[in-house]
Amino acid sequence: MKTLIVYAHPEPKSLNGSLKDLAVSTLTKAGHEVRVSDLYAMRWKATVDAADYGPSASSPLRVPKDSGRAFETGTLTPDVRAEQEKLLWADTIIFQFPLWWYTMPAILKGWVDRVFTYRFAYGVGEHSAVKYGERFGEGTLAGRRALLSVTVGGPESHYAERGINGPIDDLLFPIQHGILYYPGIEVLPPFVLYGTDRTTGDDWPDIAKAWEQRLLTLETTEPIPFRRQNFGDYEIPSLNLKEGLEPAGRSGFRLHVRA
Amino acid sequence: MKTLIVYAHPEPKSLNGSLKDLAVSTLTKAGHEVRVSDLYAMRWKATVDAADYGPSASSPLRVPKDSGRAFETGTLTPDVRAEQEKLLWADTIIFQFPLWWYTMPAILKGWVDRVFTYRFAYGVGEHSAVKYGERFGEGTLAGRRALLSVTVGGPESHYAERGINGPIDDLLFPIQHGILYYPGIEVLPPFVLYGTDRTTGDDWPDIAKAWEQRLLTLETTEPIPFRRQNFGDYEIPSLNLKEGLEPAGRSGFRLHVRA
Repeated sequence: MKTLIVYAHPEPKSLNGSLKDLAVSTLTKAGHEVRVSDLYAMRWKATVDAADYGPSASSPLRVPKDSGRAFETGTLTPDVRAEQEKLLWADTIIFQFPLWWYTMPAILKGWVDRVFTYRFAYGVGEHSAVKYGERFGEGTLAGRRALLSVTVGGPESHYAERGINGPIDDLLFPIQHGILYYPGIEVLPPFVLYGTDRTTGDDWPDIAKAWEQRLLTLETTEPIPFRRQNFGDYEIPSLNLKEGLEPAGRSGFRLHVRA
Repeated sequence: MKTLIVYAHPEPKSLNGSLKDLAVSTLTKAGHEVRVSDLYAMRWKATVDAADYGPSASSPLRVPKDSGRAFETGTLTPDVRAEQEKLLWADTIIFQFPLWWYTMPAILKGWVDRVFTYRFAYGVGEHSAVKYGERFGEGTLAGRRALLSVTVGGPESHYAERGINGPIDDLLFPIQHGILYYPGIEVLPPFVLYGTDRTTGDDWPDIAKAWEQRLLTLETTEPIPFRRQNFGDYEIPSLNLKEGLEPAGRSGFRLHVRA
């Protein structure tokens, strides 16, 4: 495998840092190629602005149009181009981050906002009576697989089916489906550690063992069976799921996972 | 009303900029006090790091513990303290932003990550057999109301009940419930504009009229009836919703809205 690890935590000696380090050593030892985007160490610029698109940015700025033109003319800033190249190089992408306020830290959202430009991650493919662009199962990053490795401060029950925070699969849906599956990446079930506000060094051997097991079985793990957009499940152009495809009683985000 | 507008768009001449400007003028004309946090104009620092907590940050850095200590000793950076003071001053908070990759732009997530510190927005209140801290309906920001004003590039059908992106209420749940209701803020139904990739100046009069109407009825608008955590609906400490409280067939995030 060619694995890109996108890692977002300000403290190298954190649990997230240890999980990232273990992923690097485990995958390297197993003969895989590994590259790391350590966003804090890189001092990743988190905010989209006109500076991303160089002197040819339009005024007023139009983020989709300007990012698409800069992508197509090769004039995106070097930091963004480097990340796009890493994504094209990789066949596997691991995101290592703590769940902060029920989603990714700002620095990682800023990686998405800036790297997933128009014409690269969205605005790809033609629109017709049977196709609404190349997205949700097709797109620039098709053929790649991703895995979220997430630490969660609170206990697992709070993220269970009836837990007050909402089910973890629903909380991660906008990332797994909306950000990753959108440009064509298949998404493996996440590796989630709960109660990490209270984990100590004593917990590490068990955590490390579970993480190594996931890392060494990445190639044989089945992805989440999200529904592909252009293959008959959705009305076009409304992109509503056709009636009757889902198991009785299923609603919300889960409609978009095959039974 | 004392209204704080938190605004996140890089282009003042954008639709988001116009909506922010209209909110300022409409509310001011109606006799309300208005303050604006224009995150791009302020060059808001989006990333949480040790610099937020001054020389007393611990090493290794522990984000919850360090942010809580800095909050309690008044040693958070001045930019963060200023935002906390604005939140305490306000009775109404409007968030104006474009939906980027199904959630808020990184700069706004970085406002949440940095301003919503331990002991201010979370880690508040005692834990007992009948109370799991002050959160979800109680907390530092109780008594305040918030409204998301969101522009969405795609068409409304894609965000409908069976739409491929998932229902807009579910996409906004981690913000409305997880970020805002958590520290006690009541949340009004959002103001969402769809298809804004294709809106032109000709659409502005209708948009402005609809937005003014929402702004001038903020005080009489009923909030989303999220369930309060410590008032009998949840098991403690599992924080699972007690069986039988929801309408038949309801699941996922919607469990946490009263029927």
